[in-house]
Amino acid sequence: MIQVAVIGFGYWGPNVVRNFCAQPGFRLVAICDQDMRALSRAQYLHPGVRATNDPAEILASPTIDVVAIVTPVWTHYPLAKAALENGKHVFVEKPFTSSSTNAVELIEIAERKRLIIMVDHTFLFTGAVKKIRELIEQKVLGDLYYYDSLRVNLGLFQHDVNVIWDLAPHDLSIMDYLLQEEPEAIVATGETHLNGHEDMAFITVYFPKNVIAHINVNWLSPVKIRTTLIGGEKRMLVWNDLDAEEKIKVYDKGVSVATQENLRQLLVSYRSGDMWAPQVQEAEALTTELTYFHECLSNNTTPFNDGRAGLRIVQMLEAAELSVKARGRSVYLQQEKRRPSLAEAKAFG
Amino acid sequence: MIQVAVIGFGYWGPNVVRNFCAQPGFRLVAICDQDMRALSRAQYLHPGVRATNDPAEILASPTIDVVAIVTPVWTHYPLAKAALENGKHVFVEKPFTSSSTNAVELIEIAERKRLIIMVDHTFLFTGAVKKIRELIEQKVLGDLYYYDSLRVNLGLFQHDVNVIWDLAPHDLSIMDYLLQEEPEAIVATGETHLNGHEDMAFITVYFPKNVIAHINVNWLSPVKIRTTLIGGEKRMLVWNDLDAEEKIKVYDKGVSVATQENLRQLLVSYRSGDMWAPQVQEAEALTTELTYFHECLSNNTTPFNDGRAGLRIVQMLEAAELSVKARGRSVYLQQEKRRPSLAEAKAFG
Amino acid sequence: MIQVAVIGFGYWGPNVVRNFCAQPGFRLVAICDQDMRALSRAQYLHPGVRATNDPAEILASPTIDVVAIVTPVWTHYPLAKAALENGKHVFVEKPFTSSSTNAVELIEIAERKRLIIMVDHTFLFTGAVKKIRELIEQKVLGDLYYYDSLRVNLGLFQHDVNVIWDLAPHDLSIMDYLLQEEPEAIVATGETHLNGHEDMAFITVYFPKNVIAHINVNWLSPVKIRTTLIGGEKRMLVWNDLDAEEKIKVYDKGVSVATQENLRQLLVSYRSGDMWAPQVQEAEALTTELTYFHECLSNNTTPFNDGRAGLRIVQMLEAAELSVKARGRSVYLQQEKRRPSLAEAKAFG
Amino acid sequence: MIQVAVIGFGYWGPNVVRNFCAQPGFRLVAICDQDMRALSRAQYLHPGVRATNDPAEILASPTIDVVAIVTPVWTHYPLAKAALENGKHVFVEKPFTSSSTNAVELIEIAERKRLIIMVDHTFLFTGAVKKIRELIEQKVLGDLYYYDSLRVNLGLFQHDVNVIWDLAPHDLSIMDYLLQEEPEAIVATGETHLNGHEDMAFITVYFPKNVIAHINVNWLSPVKIRTTLIGGEKRMLVWNDLDAEEKIKVYDKGVSVATQENLRQLLVSYRSGDMWAPQVQEAEALTTELTYFHECLSNNTTPFNDGRAGLRIVQMLEAAELSVKARGRSVYLQQEKRRPSLAEAKAFG
Repeated sequence: MIQVAVIGFGYWGPNVVRNFCAQPGFRLVAICDQDMRALSRAQYLHPGVRATNDPAEILASPTIDVVAIVTPVWTHYPLAKAALENGKHVFVEKPFTSSSTNAVELIEIAERKRLIIMVDHTFLFTGAVKKIRELIEQKVLGDLYYYDSLRVNLGLFQHDVNVIWDLAPHDLSIMDYLLQEEPEAIVATGETHLNGHEDMAFITVYFPKNVIAHINVNWLSPVKIRTTLIGGEKRMLVWNDLDAEEKIKVYDKGVSVATQENLRQLLVSYRSGDMWAPQVQEAEALTTELTYFHECLSNNTTPFNDGRAGLRIVQMLEAAELSVKARGRSVYLQQEKRRPSLAEAKAFG
Repeated sequence: MIQVAVIGFGYWGPNVVRNFCAQPGFRLVAICDQDMRALSRAQYLHPGVRATNDPAEILASPTIDVVAIVTPVWTHYPLAKAALENGKHVFVEKPFTSSSTNAVELIEIAERKRLIIMVDHTFLFTGAVKKIRELIEQKVLGDLYYYDSLRVNLGLFQHDVNVIWDLAPHDLSIMDYLLQEEPEAIVATGETHLNGHEDMAFITVYFPKNVIAHINVNWLSPVKIRTTLIGGEKRMLVWNDLDAEEKIKVYDKGVSVATQENLRQLLVSYRSGDMWAPQVQEAEALTTELTYFHECLSNNTTPFNDGRAGLRIVQMLEAAELSVKARGRSVYLQQEKRRPSLAEAKAFG
Repeated sequence: MIQVAVIGFGYWGPNVVRNFCAQPGFRLVAICDQDMRALSRAQYLHPGVRATNDPAEILASPTIDVVAIVTPVWTHYPLAKAALENGKHVFVEKPFTSSSTNAVELIEIAERKRLIIMVDHTFLFTGAVKKIRELIEQKVLGDLYYYDSLRVNLGLFQHDVNVIWDLAPHDLSIMDYLLQEEPEAIVATGETHLNGHEDMAFITVYFPKNVIAHINVNWLSPVKIRTTLIGGEKRMLVWNDLDAEEKIKVYDKGVSVATQENLRQLLVSYRSGDMWAPQVQEAEALTTELTYFHECLSNNTTPFNDGRAGLRIVQMLEAAELSVKARGRSVYLQQEKRRPSLAEAKAFG
Repeated sequence: MIQVAVIGFGYWGPNVVRNFCAQPGFRLVAICDQDMRALSRAQYLHPGVRATNDPAEILASPTIDVVAIVTPVWTHYPLAKAALENGKHVFVEKPFTSSSTNAVELIEIAERKRLIIMVDHTFLFTGAVKKIRELIEQKVLGDLYYYDSLRVNLGLFQHDVNVIWDLAPHDLSIMDYLLQEEPEAIVATGETHLNGHEDMAFITVYFPKNVIAHINVNWLSPVKIRTTLIGGEKRMLVWNDLDAEEKIKVYDKGVSVATQENLRQLLVSYRSGDMWAPQVQEAEALTTELTYFHECLSNNTTPFNDGRAGLRIVQMLEAAELSVKARGRSVYLQQEKRRPSLAEAKAFG
């Protein structure tokens, strides 16, 4: 039985707590929050679990194996660092850290101490993303052309970060997981209207071989939209996460271009066939994720959503922020090896 | 009775011809196309009208008052120039010309010879755009925050221009008409997958006072989407041009930000009320446009969609193309006076 | 070349005329309408065709092979009778006649004189209906459980008939074509609010073996809906005729019921799988229908939408009207042989 | 503090329990269920509350003021009767009883003993229904023409009742609440495909003055639909309960009919204006209902959803069942006074 403590019982923490409780193989032993109202809510809902407002108690406890950190992003680094140095595995909310330097340091500590970091990019464990990954791996879409995502709604404005750090980690982590490619450069534009932080942003990510991604995040939209288009050589896909019944639609459509001899003109031909909405698994993503976390801990394997995955997203967020402040300057990303091998990634069913 | 000749009877030409025929006050006297099949279709549909494959016949004819140019964009300049020099008013398909230098030259000739140029930005005459303009003028939305447009579908790939020159003139002209502001800079990103021209592009237009516009155009989308979000201080709007019944939805939603004394934290408050879908006039846009053209010709007034309006769009297209080729470099736009006075614009009911 | 005359150039007539003109193998020789404005419109659009306001000219002409009757329903019988007695084949708008007695008489004349009657149930020639028929024939849906159709919108109120005679012929003819079964009884309810004719009606059609159909027609709906649910043992289908892209959706869903031994309780199990939207042919239905009409005339074969098909619909309309006037009294339908053999029906590709 | 016990902890019971716990003024003292697994779930979730599998314990307890009955419908009568005879107020799930005779008897006992019965027609307490009622009361729709509701989905098949008793109580109670009229007659059709109970039914309810209601309930639909059309003389309304953002849309549309002198023909004119989606309160309906229940108990007032309201629905269900078994025979409803006075109904804010 793996002993877990959760730090942070605000918006997302209660879900993490509830899922660790329900997950066989884990035993939740402590909850920590500095806000006393949050703490008493935790006590009311989980009467058998120790509640404390002092993270040090948890970080120092010899009986805790895993610390889950579900706190504001700027606190991830000090909390995770202390946990790792005390020999604890770490489960940390996205984005991993507020700077890539911090992320690199945490990864090094974890590797040195042979500890596991899992960054909670929850969306990667939804039925929809798993199904899309499957369709891409099985070459149903063919070579990919683009990933174009729209994630807009009204609020909730954050006080400490802009819309890029708030909403884009979802899209960047999904894009990273689906494309499995190293981006070359990022161009971001956006604007600030109300509280000094960008409330809308448009991020372009350039990949090798003419693959391109685009992410539109906006806190000032009157309607909620969660739609992603993915274009491939053979087929194209629309993922509407707000459609309860038909989240993913695969279109048997394509374009071919041929050059006819003796003709300077290109011949473009369109192919159009059936549409198909594969059934998508409905399990709660966090449940699936914690099952996988338990497997990784038990088998001592590196999760595909490890610290390096978290670092890749943080690097892209930093690049996007730099670009948006410079009105769309191209920011090039370093091409070091940042991705787990396919074999490691495959470990996840 | 104003005598009109139409050059070009391909995709859009037949609509222009049909509308000039139906419009009282105009008399269609000639149709020109170099493709003999197009010409015989024209003769079949309009048996009483002279058909020719030689534009010179039209350009030289002393009995023609107006030449409508509905041909590929690179031919607009030479045809319009000849027409103007022969003393004819010009109605020209969008985009106005393929370079701003050409556009400036045509504007100068027209002004010197006191002739009218109308650039056929048809969308400005739709019930939807007229209604949105009205809502903005009546301050229903309050100060504007952004304009964000999505115009994607599968094909039709053009051989001679990229998706920016093909689709973005619609959005740029609508944005120009609705915002009534001079843009400061453009950042565009995009990618080429099939025939050497960009088939998808993401264009950001920066305006003064934190107003921003974003345009997403794509020839490689499996679904057709024509949706524009417009955010204002007081209300927000969604225009879905594919919704036959409820094209425009106005949301009584807003965000306010206040700074509380003694508190470093901003207080963000959301307001949410009813939604309202105003009825939108259903007349054919081209019909409304030609009625307006006739008024301008009769009263010798400058249309709001004149050569200078066409030039503004061409300048933005040039900037977007420059930016997209340079992977998102900011391209600054010249701040000369390019816009007709409000009084002129108001002439349009 | 088959010589055709069209009587009636009101709402639907111009489409019939245009399609006969475009169809190889037919030659349109005359158009008749008693309204002089309709007639001059016909002359303007079809300058080479004789226009007359006297149907007798057409009915007596020795050079006309086919008379198409596109006039108000109460005139179908006398016009068709005269045409048949003069040896002409008849193409007649739906519903066939305003009484089944009239329909039976026309069928007898046509059979005696070996002439063809085609009743213009245009919907049977749409890509959507053809595709659904195909899915049913290929047992994709399994045994059918029900057909449930919703056809509502605002207006257009008819002066001479109620909403049953106006809208239900579409649904009844589609149902008749898809189910290929003889109905046993009809129950209809409805109400009259404005002009003395029922403006909304709910029609239930009972078939053998627990198959049931339901048709909801309404002239007083604020929104336009054209949706049909078809439930089968193996799969179920939704046909939304207003969805331009995905008219038909096939759901791999089902319910099975088993009785467990020693348990009085039934075990109901649900099966849920992918959804699939087959591509639907987009040709104009009337074009497909007239091609088929030409084949039937050339090969002297009975069309599946012949007089007997028309009669079946008229009988159901009469039954529905009788029932609605009697507040839902069950009206039983006669079980005579009214359907062409499967072999005949199969003649249609 | 009002002491409450809940009998039944199956599908709906846990929601009733949770809401009584959260509602100030009520104190939940006991939960009863005969299924031991349900009972232990109840104990786990509500550790401080007595759990029993014997209803008699609750019915006999002198400290309990209110018994909430959330059990299968055939048990409502004996449980409610015992509770009332023991002097307890009763909150009972819909439908009230399985026969109108039982309902009448319970109403008489309650009136004799001055006890309150509230029938849990939860939908009447949703923001949507309250808003529609408001629109009708304020004459926004004008005189009503019809109520047409579609409530279809796949399953859940009930073992003991047909789809009419399972789904139609929702629509009948909403219709009863909105129209505030006594129905004259009911015609129902339907069919049985799987387990011996009707799995689809079409119910027409005739009201005085040409008002008509129609309810389409179906357990065998591949898609879930919850849509109601309400037509009025001045405006029309669509309520889509599955639309999270815009549940109610009011259409400023109408039809007028005039008879012109000297003309036998009716002139029908259509009016079409804006659409408007009023904001709908999002509170949980059961919470609102229990607040109202507490008010009724405290002030000793009769709720509008009292036993007589429950009886009206049961009578309509009986009539619909009788009609469906007789293939649509009209069943007339008795015109006794069954409705609380407007003053009583108004007591509910």
